[in-house]
Amino acid sequence: MTGGRQELMRRIDQALGRARADLVIKDTRFLNVATGEIAEGDIAICGDRIVGTYESYDGVREIDGRGLTVVPGFIDTHVHCESTCVTPFEFDRCVLPRGTTTAICDPHEICNVLGERGLTYFLESAGRMALDLRVQLSSCVPATDLETSGARLEADDLVRYRDHPHVLGLAEFMNFPGVFAKLPAVLDKLAAFQDRHIDGHAPLVRGRELNAYLSCGVRNCHETTSADEAWEKLRKGMQVLIRDGSVSKDVHALAGVIGPETSPFLGFCTDDRNPLDIAEEGHMDHLIRAAIKLGAPVAHVYRAATWSAARGFGLFDRGLVAPGQRADLVLLDDLEDCAVNTVIKGGAVVSAETFAGRGPVDPVGLDSVRLDPVRVEDFRVPEGPSARPVIGVLPGKIITERLTLEVPQRRGEAVADPDRDILKVCVFARHGSNRNVGRGFVRGFGFAEGAIASSVGHDSHNVCVVGASDADMAIAVNRLIELQGGFVAVRNGHVIGEIALPLAGLMSLNPFETVERELKDLRASVRAMGCPLAEPFLQLAFLPLPVIPHLKITDMGLVDVDRFELVDA
Amino acid sequence: MTGGRQELMRRIDQALGRARADLVIKDTRFLNVATGEIAEGDIAICGDRIVGTYESYDGVREIDGRGLTVVPGFIDTHVHCESTCVTPFEFDRCVLPRGTTTAICDPHEICNVLGERGLTYFLESAGRMALDLRVQLSSCVPATDLETSGARLEADDLVRYRDHPHVLGLAEFMNFPGVFAKLPAVLDKLAAFQDRHIDGHAPLVRGRELNAYLSCGVRNCHETTSADEAWEKLRKGMQVLIRDGSVSKDVHALAGVIGPETSPFLGFCTDDRNPLDIAEEGHMDHLIRAAIKLGAPVAHVYRAATWSAARGFGLFDRGLVAPGQRADLVLLDDLEDCAVNTVIKGGAVVSAETFAGRGPVDPVGLDSVRLDPVRVEDFRVPEGPSARPVIGVLPGKIITERLTLEVPQRRGEAVADPDRDILKVCVFARHGSNRNVGRGFVRGFGFAEGAIASSVGHDSHNVCVVGASDADMAIAVNRLIELQGGFVAVRNGHVIGEIALPLAGLMSLNPFETVERELKDLRASVRAMGCPLAEPFLQLAFLPLPVIPHLKITDMGLVDVDRFELVDA
Repeated sequence: MTGGRQELMRRIDQALGRARADLVIKDTRFLNVATGEIAEGDIAICGDRIVGTYESYDGVREIDGRGLTVVPGFIDTHVHCESTCVTPFEFDRCVLPRGTTTAICDPHEICNVLGERGLTYFLESAGRMALDLRVQLSSCVPATDLETSGARLEADDLVRYRDHPHVLGLAEFMNFPGVFAKLPAVLDKLAAFQDRHIDGHAPLVRGRELNAYLSCGVRNCHETTSADEAWEKLRKGMQVLIRDGSVSKDVHALAGVIGPETSPFLGFCTDDRNPLDIAEEGHMDHLIRAAIKLGAPVAHVYRAATWSAARGFGLFDRGLVAPGQRADLVLLDDLEDCAVNTVIKGGAVVSAETFAGRGPVDPVGLDSVRLDPVRVEDFRVPEGPSARPVIGVLPGKIITERLTLEVPQRRGEAVADPDRDILKVCVFARHGSNRNVGRGFVRGFGFAEGAIASSVGHDSHNVCVVGASDADMAIAVNRLIELQGGFVAVRNGHVIGEIALPLAGLMSLNPFETVERELKDLRASVRAMGCPLAEPFLQLAFLPLPVIPHLKITDMGLVDVDRFELVDA
Repeated sequence: MTGGRQELMRRIDQALGRARADLVIKDTRFLNVATGEIAEGDIAICGDRIVGTYESYDGVREIDGRGLTVVPGFIDTHVHCESTCVTPFEFDRCVLPRGTTTAICDPHEICNVLGERGLTYFLESAGRMALDLRVQLSSCVPATDLETSGARLEADDLVRYRDHPHVLGLAEFMNFPGVFAKLPAVLDKLAAFQDRHIDGHAPLVRGRELNAYLSCGVRNCHETTSADEAWEKLRKGMQVLIRDGSVSKDVHALAGVIGPETSPFLGFCTDDRNPLDIAEEGHMDHLIRAAIKLGAPVAHVYRAATWSAARGFGLFDRGLVAPGQRADLVLLDDLEDCAVNTVIKGGAVVSAETFAGRGPVDPVGLDSVRLDPVRVEDFRVPEGPSARPVIGVLPGKIITERLTLEVPQRRGEAVADPDRDILKVCVFARHGSNRNVGRGFVRGFGFAEGAIASSVGHDSHNVCVVGASDADMAIAVNRLIELQGGFVAVRNGHVIGEIALPLAGLMSLNPFETVERELKDLRASVRAMGCPLAEPFLQLAFLPLPVIPHLKITDMGLVDVDRFELVDA
């Protein structure tokens, strides 16, 4: 057992130099994030712990540390693993070699589909993964009452997992309007975690509203998008988790906030980051590199990414290159460029074998697209006023515009007008509890023919589809049903691109390298259709998110987010 | 209930300004220890929490904050309340009005006398006190095997209290030699708290030994006496708790270490501080004042005394003037001078009434001096070699010198020689388990006639007595037995000064003001006897502490601390 009497005896002998250490990084340099100094010498490791610094050590195994700079393992303070489109095990294999030794996730997506079964799948995975995955308890399932989710999680459901060893507390508390409205079910969740960790989510929440939100015990926010907003949150004692995901990228706006005074109150996170971006830019290493390039002081960037992140979540056993800390270390070829050479997790060098021995976790939710095959008629929008509300997609943003446009009507129904970039958008409830279909129109996808469909649709993950023709839309949805989830692109009656995400309709069963390739191919197919968007499936996936302004669509219909109510299409 | 749904509703309404706040400090300035800025405005409080900063608020009750500067309540990170010679309730009444809103104590003294009964007395007191007292679990009872204590606490005894709401973890782990020697009973205590907080105690422990000690999970040290030592500990990730007690005063040596880089890794503590020093100099306010006077940056001194202290012990609900934090606030007339005007604890202004409503806690251990009356013959030191080891007391220090001096012999026994400042010193076991008497000689007390005796004698708290005459020594000890503990001064057959400490032989049942006066009178009496020491009873109380070099005396006899063995007197 780690930390038992025998293990302590081994640590003592190795720290004192009575016995050779299990592993020594010899003649290296390391960044001391406590003092900001670059230190030189050996780092001794016994089992999963660092046992010696600032002294000379011999090891049973030794790594030549010359030319390398060692830093503590990185901590992703807020991530939805599902957004990588791969299983937690593949997430592990993808990001640990990049230096992310701890990730604090919110299984919000899978819980919206599978409820408690999604949570336990993540907890079971966490127990076998190589990186240390902490699983926060998703606080807002469903996110709103204007959509049909696959499950509900109430305060009582969450409390049962409060003391699980992989749980730190309550995941991002998105429902701040529910806080200000004092909804009992919302407050009960917060009340149950008053003596635990509560993650925040407070985009643009300022002034007295921020005070009210913080008064409920929320500790941090990863939704901060300007320096001015960050300063207000820091002044009010809120830990600011600087995010750079695939959709929301805040490091440019916030790098200037990082300094000696503030670094203890900061952290970094990826939130939603897909495997393409991880492959092309990086994971936490990207955030660190980007912040340093933007001029933030090197030692304080690393402090924020390690020690501050750990302590902000009550983790005392990591975040420093120091005796007694977990031997979660990143060996860098270059400190400023965060160029990862080798990763050590729990005292072991990370390699292919690290991941081979994890033991299996059975996938869950392989039949989660509970939808009968659709027909062309299901997409019919009845005739009505010719001026209709149309969702205006903004490239690279999850907020949308509320447009009012003339939508043509033919043979008693309103139809898409690809020439004017007015496409149809539908959302099909896919959790088996009802047969809702939401229908409307959208501008911004820009293709003249074909359709794209997705079973990823935040936050309830119903099937969403955008198309120039009802026939292609039907083919896309039916193919999605066959795949039991994924992304599909259809043109002129033919499937031209697809990726299967059969685990809860959110995650692939393939290795991340395969998914990366599939995503690249799919992106090219949709671009060939004439879609100008860099990430058409991400933009599609956020169309049903009714907590983000201004006009969205769920299985219940078009949602005016500003008024938080359904509107006629 | 604090933090229940109803309480959250009240907080939200007050934070939003929908309802008047319970209490508002209007038009004030406050030190933001997160950003280092001085902010201006109102501080709104609901129940025991801050609910508003950086906004304007109206209160049901309002305090005019003009001219004041508000800071978070101070945290004493390591204190033996027993050293104030008063009960925990009186400690509360003494230090809370000086701004100490949280104290993390180690009931090591009472546990050495009463064992678990001492611990539960402190826990029961903690449950009713106005300041927030956290009770660490005394890790070294008894401190050594070279003395007779009143109790033993093994790992199993401590584990039972691990989850008590007033317990944070294991108290100062003094037995670092036992760590290096890998003693099973010692390691079992550490092993049982690997996932909890473990306080350190590592005076002059450096290099590989410090690495070994830290490898066992120890988090901090309050025994650091030089800047060089502090830097090594900080570099190795150990939180350095800067101490200024009545005996050990380290703030002068360590103030230079306090800065923007280090402040998150620091804290302050008093360890042992008597009511006289608290009255004359202060408590945590003294430490803050002293560090600032020595040139440490103001904001970082306060950060160390508040936020850093709290987070280092895993307390997330205090240490900032920010919404959601406990309303533990100190209103200062002057920031740099730490001049306390008003203290707010849990949202209530501290006054005499604060302490009136605490409900009683029955004293324990009122019969703890289990010693039959002594006779003059009990002090007899048999004839032997004329050159003997003599304890050399060093004024103001708890380390002693090992002297070898000619001790006169008369009528078959070795006797004191007051003219050469060689007095007799004896320690009587007082816990009823044996009738041990340790006898020897001491230089440094400097009085020509009389004796002083104490039932406070670290760490086993046997009765220790120093005297120029056996007759006066016997009178002093017998008076101590009548008092059931305390300090006694005798001259020419008469008791000339005394203070009763009947609670475990360590604490008075009187108010701290009475104890302060009694201590002052007693100090004057002993000074009149010709004793040059500033704190004769403190010096006496540390003579039996066999973990501090070089020559000490316990009920078992003289102890050569360097060789850790008994020697002939």
